[in-house]
Amino acid sequence: MKNTIGRHIICTIFGESHGRAIGVTLDGLPAGIRIDEEWMRLRLEQRKAKGRISTQRHESDQPIIVSGLFEGYTTGTPLTILMENKAQHSQDYEKTKDRLRPSHADYTADMKYLGFQDYRGGGHFSGRITAPLVAAGAIAQQILKANGIELGTHIRKCHGIEDIAFAQAETQLEEQLQQLATADFPVLDEQRGKQMKQMIEEVAAQGDSVGGILESAVIHMPAGLGEPFFDSMESIIAHYLYSIPAVKGVSFGLGFDFATRLGSEANDAILCENGRVMTRTNHNGGINGGITNGMPLVINTCIKPTPSIYKEQDTIHKTTHEAQKLTIQGRHDPAIIHRARVVVDSVLALAILDLYMERSAVLALQNHRKEEKV
Amino acid sequence: MKNTIGRHIICTIFGESHGRAIGVTLDGLPAGIRIDEEWMRLRLEQRKAKGRISTQRHESDQPIIVSGLFEGYTTGTPLTILMENKAQHSQDYEKTKDRLRPSHADYTADMKYLGFQDYRGGGHFSGRITAPLVAAGAIAQQILKANGIELGTHIRKCHGIEDIAFAQAETQLEEQLQQLATADFPVLDEQRGKQMKQMIEEVAAQGDSVGGILESAVIHMPAGLGEPFFDSMESIIAHYLYSIPAVKGVSFGLGFDFATRLGSEANDAILCENGRVMTRTNHNGGINGGITNGMPLVINTCIKPTPSIYKEQDTIHKTTHEAQKLTIQGRHDPAIIHRARVVVDSVLALAILDLYMERSAVLALQNHRKEEKV
Amino acid sequence: MKNTIGRHIICTIFGESHGRAIGVTLDGLPAGIRIDEEWMRLRLEQRKAKGRISTQRHESDQPIIVSGLFEGYTTGTPLTILMENKAQHSQDYEKTKDRLRPSHADYTADMKYLGFQDYRGGGHFSGRITAPLVAAGAIAQQILKANGIELGTHIRKCHGIEDIAFAQAETQLEEQLQQLATADFPVLDEQRGKQMKQMIEEVAAQGDSVGGILESAVIHMPAGLGEPFFDSMESIIAHYLYSIPAVKGVSFGLGFDFATRLGSEANDAILCENGRVMTRTNHNGGINGGITNGMPLVINTCIKPTPSIYKEQDTIHKTTHEAQKLTIQGRHDPAIIHRARVVVDSVLALAILDLYMERSAVLALQNHRKEEKV
Amino acid sequence: MKNTIGRHIICTIFGESHGRAIGVTLDGLPAGIRIDEEWMRLRLEQRKAKGRISTQRHESDQPIIVSGLFEGYTTGTPLTILMENKAQHSQDYEKTKDRLRPSHADYTADMKYLGFQDYRGGGHFSGRITAPLVAAGAIAQQILKANGIELGTHIRKCHGIEDIAFAQAETQLEEQLQQLATADFPVLDEQRGKQMKQMIEEVAAQGDSVGGILESAVIHMPAGLGEPFFDSMESIIAHYLYSIPAVKGVSFGLGFDFATRLGSEANDAILCENGRVMTRTNHNGGINGGITNGMPLVINTCIKPTPSIYKEQDTIHKTTHEAQKLTIQGRHDPAIIHRARVVVDSVLALAILDLYMERSAVLALQNHRKEEKV
Repeated sequence: MKNTIGRHIICTIFGESHGRAIGVTLDGLPAGIRIDEEWMRLRLEQRKAKGRISTQRHESDQPIIVSGLFEGYTTGTPLTILMENKAQHSQDYEKTKDRLRPSHADYTADMKYLGFQDYRGGGHFSGRITAPLVAAGAIAQQILKANGIELGTHIRKCHGIEDIAFAQAETQLEEQLQQLATADFPVLDEQRGKQMKQMIEEVAAQGDSVGGILESAVIHMPAGLGEPFFDSMESIIAHYLYSIPAVKGVSFGLGFDFATRLGSEANDAILCENGRVMTRTNHNGGINGGITNGMPLVINTCIKPTPSIYKEQDTIHKTTHEAQKLTIQGRHDPAIIHRARVVVDSVLALAILDLYMERSAVLALQNHRKEEKV
Repeated sequence: MKNTIGRHIICTIFGESHGRAIGVTLDGLPAGIRIDEEWMRLRLEQRKAKGRISTQRHESDQPIIVSGLFEGYTTGTPLTILMENKAQHSQDYEKTKDRLRPSHADYTADMKYLGFQDYRGGGHFSGRITAPLVAAGAIAQQILKANGIELGTHIRKCHGIEDIAFAQAETQLEEQLQQLATADFPVLDEQRGKQMKQMIEEVAAQGDSVGGILESAVIHMPAGLGEPFFDSMESIIAHYLYSIPAVKGVSFGLGFDFATRLGSEANDAILCENGRVMTRTNHNGGINGGITNGMPLVINTCIKPTPSIYKEQDTIHKTTHEAQKLTIQGRHDPAIIHRARVVVDSVLALAILDLYMERSAVLALQNHRKEEKV
Repeated sequence: MKNTIGRHIICTIFGESHGRAIGVTLDGLPAGIRIDEEWMRLRLEQRKAKGRISTQRHESDQPIIVSGLFEGYTTGTPLTILMENKAQHSQDYEKTKDRLRPSHADYTADMKYLGFQDYRGGGHFSGRITAPLVAAGAIAQQILKANGIELGTHIRKCHGIEDIAFAQAETQLEEQLQQLATADFPVLDEQRGKQMKQMIEEVAAQGDSVGGILESAVIHMPAGLGEPFFDSMESIIAHYLYSIPAVKGVSFGLGFDFATRLGSEANDAILCENGRVMTRTNHNGGINGGITNGMPLVINTCIKPTPSIYKEQDTIHKTTHEAQKLTIQGRHDPAIIHRARVVVDSVLALAILDLYMERSAVLALQNHRKEEKV
Repeated sequence: MKNTIGRHIICTIFGESHGRAIGVTLDGLPAGIRIDEEWMRLRLEQRKAKGRISTQRHESDQPIIVSGLFEGYTTGTPLTILMENKAQHSQDYEKTKDRLRPSHADYTADMKYLGFQDYRGGGHFSGRITAPLVAAGAIAQQILKANGIELGTHIRKCHGIEDIAFAQAETQLEEQLQQLATADFPVLDEQRGKQMKQMIEEVAAQGDSVGGILESAVIHMPAGLGEPFFDSMESIIAHYLYSIPAVKGVSFGLGFDFATRLGSEANDAILCENGRVMTRTNHNGGINGGITNGMPLVINTCIKPTPSIYKEQDTIHKTTHEAQKLTIQGRHDPAIIHRARVVVDSVLALAILDLYMERSAVLALQNHRKEEKV
């Protein structure tokens, strides 16, 4: 559905980088949820560009809730959040607007919208449109939390430098998620984080950019969410994650490493501890047959290097198709992986909340087990 | 939408492994498409278990088209295909039905359906349900072909043994797709294929199983398909691919390798050759900003090893939750990657056809470029 | 979504009047529902043609459940019901197939499907496709009943002859619904029913046909179902009802009579009796602001006269467009209103069940009132 | 989908009567459509309250387009329109906020949103939310017009006073639609219009209100739009129309009058004039079998009297449920039928545009007739 997603929490985003405002509408929220706007602002803060490892465009990103909130609680009707654009430098784009930026959406937008798209600052394709997504995700994440479900994301890998992986043990994993919640640069091992930042600065100094891999975990998931085929947990989560610009890989549990495992090395033995069914390992990332098994969800998301680099590149003129040299102007991020973390959290929260509600709709009618059937 | 997917070609699958019949309905097909039932049967044949590297359950998989076809052409009304189940050995499942099979959907199905699911042969979770998907995909693929779009898939990697990658040059890629179309064991390098088969037999002899990676390519894609955010090409394609049981990773272009590239090594320079806009490399797998750029789509799909292994495993009893040893009975595949290839092709065809129609709906109203605007 | 409807219970119908089989798939059913196949057959029996007031085509309409049912209970996976076509007289249509039948779908089907549609017996447009809908509705109605919601429909008016209206008092209304449940010709006043049947026979003798108005009631509806705008109760119910061929009018409560009332005559005073909030009158048919208020839903559905009459009519040749006289052959109903009753019940049940589940999804997260908020 | 509707043009409305702003997002618009903002303002003007026959709340309703428009043309990305609320008198609602207004959404909103809804001015249930719908409809109507399709609506009946019906002859109908386009009080016979206005003033003087019937026509419709069952033209159009608050009846062609016609009086004879297939009469309102036949669509919509009357009414206290007398305060419309006209036009335009695009998606793949098949 284009710029709209969700079956229960219907999320619509709108806006252009240099337009009047960007925003998001959440339709289908339950009524009576207290919105912690302070925490929403913290999340937006974590998405913001900071220091030398980010773009020098600094937007205030003040979320204005124009509907759906009354006396601090959701009303149950559509909640719309606006953010005004203020720090545009549209002239940065004037000079090079006829040269297609490699690996950007310039050419594809032009083929899709036939030249009518707003090209300034990437228009609707700008990473800036993820700010309203973060505001929306902050609401979804609060609702999940109130129902016991928590999630978080760290940089697992950034151009060769690896952070440690999430812990298998759930209590340790809980602590790691808490640590990440307030981290500005989201890594589990501070030392590796420093190395990453230093590397990014070096790459930035060369006018280049880097990508990386984000590892996410969701804990205290109820078992039984998701569908056997088209709306498998993996299908829905991947759908949401791939809507983040720059994501080029999504995997679950061992992911692509499954290709080199034997079945006997890949299967997760099942056991019951203190009355709780669980698996000894969690190679399947908490999902079997498309449905949650109650173990933590473990998801890897690969972010490609930002295509806005300052090095000279080969391209063509938009309409004449003549070969051109391009040196990109403007303010750009040498890395977005640390900023993307909160966007990943946000779409994950939206996806899981939707699936949670989906299951609630069925459970309301499905209220006894086979053993009790009459 | 559970077991239903698609906005234009609405595909619904149904059936259980040991039930009366399995099937699929395609709603929204254009009228007047000649259906090549022979080719549908060839595709089903390619999905079938064969030799020592597959299960010994042999179903005829004869597709019966019960509606939507008249005098050899689609009518434009829902087309339903049925396949009767015949070679069930339900008793194979009786003995172990109370022991949860590790990394299967036994436990999750039980949590979702509260014990009412048909457990025989995996029920609705059986890989067998992919047979109707292949029949449906065969129709979608024929429609794409009539519109110039072709696609194919090979085993890129199987437990350590790698096939060569798809060619960059489009003419060579075309030939490779043609070669794959009739291949029973889908590899580009026959020698590697033999090694894979031998390895699978060895693994099978040990009662174990393997997974692998499938590489798919789609050629002659028009530019401009897909949406900037929630219905990006990647989102839609991943959604469809992840509905295939056993898929645990999906990536586009360089995929997870983007994590170690610099922007300057990841960007695809743009050029114009013989009036056609293209890129020098295709690291982005034919997609920028969620939208096709006219280059071949390149997609990698990781299939985990089949969880049905004959080695003894640790598990618990379904209701008492007591620890148990399990040795799986019945007829199972030591590898499904060669059979999964045609399923991947099928859902890819369904996904792309849907996006193709989506674009047609807009293009019908959007019929001039900005330069010509009045 | 073409031949697919529903967000929670996704219902897909397929088949042609003279094809191999017709059928329906329900995806999204809760698991563990005992299906009363006997009652499903009773409902199909009530839809069947009988006596001189109906067509002489007699199909057995035996429903075959091919999936989604295991040991008498729903599995929670797609439930598909097939009905084979047996009593076709395709030759009846050969003679006149090139003459467009007035007020039939011949011309519009031809414009939509470009001549590829199966024309025999009306093809997919046949009223026969409503038989699977009735089977599906019988399941939905059973689930509603288990949750306390009951519904029924009677012929309020048939070509000038009026039945008494549903009672205002709920206990009396309950009795009326029970009476209708087993009635073959659904009227509240037997005497009026006899007059209607006699009138239909007279009209049939003249080769003509009649339509009428069906009045439906749904009782014990929980308050709070439906949405303020696009998915108002009225929107969703009308959407389902208008999918029944021959329906040309749908209204709620006083319906079109609201046009002549003053606000003071149209408003329903609110009172509280024995702790239950209710309205003194029910002019609004149980819905305010698109949302149920707990009073019975009251819905009127107008069915046009069947267009298959034996009188000579003016029309044109399908391809040459020359003027032609047409005298329709074959076996046709002089009235379908008595048969349509059970179809109306069926789609009502499907609509309400969907809205019921929609509400459950939200209620699961929305579990305290404003007064209790913290 | 709650406050979101459409498959191609996805329309989401948001806002509360006394909140910060109300608005609408249209996602899926084609790029390159010149938006006539002047005409949008004219349409909003026609929806506005005027004179003694309307409420005395006067909002400027200035539409602010915050995204999706660039240099006067649609960009193809989501177009969001905001309208700020300025003329609220929230205190009017304070006094009576605990008394449930009869036939309003007070009680149902309370049951649905558990008391968290914004009650001021009806909150999200306010007729005011139809202003953004009109802005959205103005865009859809412009696109339809550019494709030759025109539509309009007049007051067919207002509390006993009837306007003449739309003409059968298409050229005359065209003129009538043109006349209505600029009419402030939409009737075909000025004299009847004067009588209606006088009657409304009299009713207003008594503190009462009236409803009525709107007749709409859509001309130059292509044949072949709509689906045989669930997405019949009637289903989709009724779904949109019933999302307008106060609509309680929707019918097509002869509507409920079909109940008293014989088939021979109801069928439309088919003829071919100057190469164009048409029907002698248009009893079916341009739709057969759920699909357009190329004749004008004729639709009747019944609007109930506005429930906000100044006469004393019986009701109960919101929480204590004690019986109460209520005399409504504030500024209210004694009739909304003249204002509703432009809302009906708007949702009709949105519905038809969606169906038009749906057909385009299929036609793109369906490009030859049966006679030409190979």
